[in-house]
Amino acid sequence: MSRTPPNLLTATQDALEAVRSTSPLVQCITNSVVVGFTANALLAVGAAPAMVDIPEEAGMFAGVASGVLINLGTCREEQRAAALEAAPAANAAGTPWVLDPVAIGALPVRTPLAYRLRDLGPSIVRGNASEILALAELGTGGRGVDSTSSVDAALTASQMLARVTGGVVAVSGATDVVTDGVSVVRLTNGHPVLTKVTGGGCALGAIMAAFAAVTPDALTAAVAATSVYTVAADLAAERSALPGSFAVALLDALSEVSVDDIAERAVIA
Amino acid sequence: MSRTPPNLLTATQDALEAVRSTSPLVQCITNSVVVGFTANALLAVGAAPAMVDIPEEAGMFAGVASGVLINLGTCREEQRAAALEAAPAANAAGTPWVLDPVAIGALPVRTPLAYRLRDLGPSIVRGNASEILALAELGTGGRGVDSTSSVDAALTASQMLARVTGGVVAVSGATDVVTDGVSVVRLTNGHPVLTKVTGGGCALGAIMAAFAAVTPDALTAAVAATSVYTVAADLAAERSALPGSFAVALLDALSEVSVDDIAERAVIA
Amino acid sequence: MSRTPPNLLTATQDALEAVRSTSPLVQCITNSVVVGFTANALLAVGAAPAMVDIPEEAGMFAGVASGVLINLGTCREEQRAAALEAAPAANAAGTPWVLDPVAIGALPVRTPLAYRLRDLGPSIVRGNASEILALAELGTGGRGVDSTSSVDAALTASQMLARVTGGVVAVSGATDVVTDGVSVVRLTNGHPVLTKVTGGGCALGAIMAAFAAVTPDALTAAVAATSVYTVAADLAAERSALPGSFAVALLDALSEVSVDDIAERAVIA
Repeated sequence: MSRTPPNLLTATQDALEAVRSTSPLVQCITNSVVVGFTANALLAVGAAPAMVDIPEEAGMFAGVASGVLINLGTCREEQRAAALEAAPAANAAGTPWVLDPVAIGALPVRTPLAYRLRDLGPSIVRGNASEILALAELGTGGRGVDSTSSVDAALTASQMLARVTGGVVAVSGATDVVTDGVSVVRLTNGHPVLTKVTGGGCALGAIMAAFAAVTPDALTAAVAATSVYTVAADLAAERSALPGSFAVALLDALSEVSVDDIAERAVIA
Repeated sequence: MSRTPPNLLTATQDALEAVRSTSPLVQCITNSVVVGFTANALLAVGAAPAMVDIPEEAGMFAGVASGVLINLGTCREEQRAAALEAAPAANAAGTPWVLDPVAIGALPVRTPLAYRLRDLGPSIVRGNASEILALAELGTGGRGVDSTSSVDAALTASQMLARVTGGVVAVSGATDVVTDGVSVVRLTNGHPVLTKVTGGGCALGAIMAAFAAVTPDALTAAVAATSVYTVAADLAAERSALPGSFAVALLDALSEVSVDDIAERAVIA
Repeated sequence: MSRTPPNLLTATQDALEAVRSTSPLVQCITNSVVVGFTANALLAVGAAPAMVDIPEEAGMFAGVASGVLINLGTCREEQRAAALEAAPAANAAGTPWVLDPVAIGALPVRTPLAYRLRDLGPSIVRGNASEILALAELGTGGRGVDSTSSVDAALTASQMLARVTGGVVAVSGATDVVTDGVSVVRLTNGHPVLTKVTGGGCALGAIMAAFAAVTPDALTAAVAATSVYTVAADLAAERSALPGSFAVALLDALSEVSVDDIAERAVIA
């Protein structure tokens, strides 16, 4: 039985049904490792992927997409230019967009790019604790990344970051945390084998963009996407907790997960 | 029982056996989303993939490959240059090549590139109805894409396009249509879950290149490849119609589909 | 029952346990076809993948990675620059690195790049017979690639190449051969379906980098990685020898293969 407050539960169920009934078009500028799995995850959950990630096309497309994901995992030069086209175009069109600042911190190309994108105000930032800590380095006022990447430090950083971007920050971990800088929502579904599949987190970023396209507020979108994805992971892990079979089962589960599964299994607080 | 005319049935069976016995080398310049799945589909059906997609190598390789696929899904700059090397080199060597004009129409980089490639005379163009309509914009003489992308409009466009390119045009849909501008062949195998797997259509383009390598005429090649691929999809969907499992089963089925399966299941008219 | 000498068997088992207990960070600069499968194979066996493959980051990252793979399968311009950053940085840091010279020989971009990288002294070179023969073209003193790519010719070339690089050379085939120029080790596990999965060989190169990170000598690392990978392939092929299912089962088997499986099944001589 779910321990989730009724309003969050209903909002998650409504968002899932809205994704399936409207099939939002999600533009992904994402890394080469996960791009196929991400497209398949979007299709499975009911959205429509479009990996338009080259300059001169990315900005135009962001104006017509329902949602945009920018993931910096293998950000070659053309993708960097595409990202810097797509984010302002999404803003201009009122299109929600998600930033996934993969592995930023010390790496000298993606880190300043992530800061530029952060300053463009992503609707949702999604990352693990150390990425969120790195992205929260807000000029001289920021807290040092010499903080340990503990849950507490990441929570503080995510709240600061959300206030600066004016959006929502989602921190992945054994407990997933989503905040708009004021409210803090914790989700505890999911299974450790998810960390043994490449793109487990990256695909969630794309699914957040799909949910943001059908949900008025980004907090609900990030919570609903996380809940649907991790409940699907729970269902998949019951079929197999071995990484190859699990990845296949996860795509199956994303296509099958029902509002009743959410009601029975979602743990959101 | 198949309702397919005996000559098309026999030609499809012969082409499948020829692919398996000669393992044609298929060069793919294709998008990052589907490149792995495409290579696996080619291997499964019995062909040999080679993703040689960088300038200075793509042209040389097209001269020795058995068939070439050019797919514009994520056509970054080096791939665009590689495509413009490979197509003339394939022509010069008499190598069949397939053009898949993914998502052309409004996008300003891939659309003019697709027109240039169209004018180089691809052996086969493969796309969905709206892509074929966009590619058929033949200068001032073309029919407008303000036509609705109905089956009828796409059929007319595909016939016009085939006459202009001197090749074959294959339009994917619930009914697949293949034409050389005069003959029109319709195929009705396949399953809706194929649209829930990224690269479902893109991989078929690569398989068409493999079949074109072993079949004297491009019409037969496109029909045979479509029939083998969609009959394999039927077999796979009987194992699972969930997207993750189906994609795995499709690769299995491509390696197992037999001339008897074709005889029993192919619906070509 | 294994016919493997006790010292090689123990070293392989120790290396497997060390990979799982220390989870070495493996940087991969690899081709777009196999990049997802490679990351999943590394995760499955217990390592941590990081596909940092852009200039200005690749060299820095090679200094902190536990091992590095450079695979030339689709070496676009940025990857070529990244490879030429990463190899010297790995050398400077004492980090083992693996070179996989995919499809070199006649192709004019990757072949000279492979020679440059060869001259930087990779810890392990991994390839098939014809790639090893091509890479062994050691200036005027080299044996011509007009030699047939027979096992004997490849063995001679691999020994010459190992002496020139000061490292280890691993030649994939029905029998896998690993040599440091003096010792020659032959491994005969594995299953033909492995050649029907794209990235079957490429992923092994990445796993060699993981094993090299936890093993003092490169010969043991290459032997242990090959043995673990091909024993896992044997286990997977028992579940399915169809290519789609086999690829999934291989990832599962990489996560499950035990030191007892190695003891029972490894055939190393």
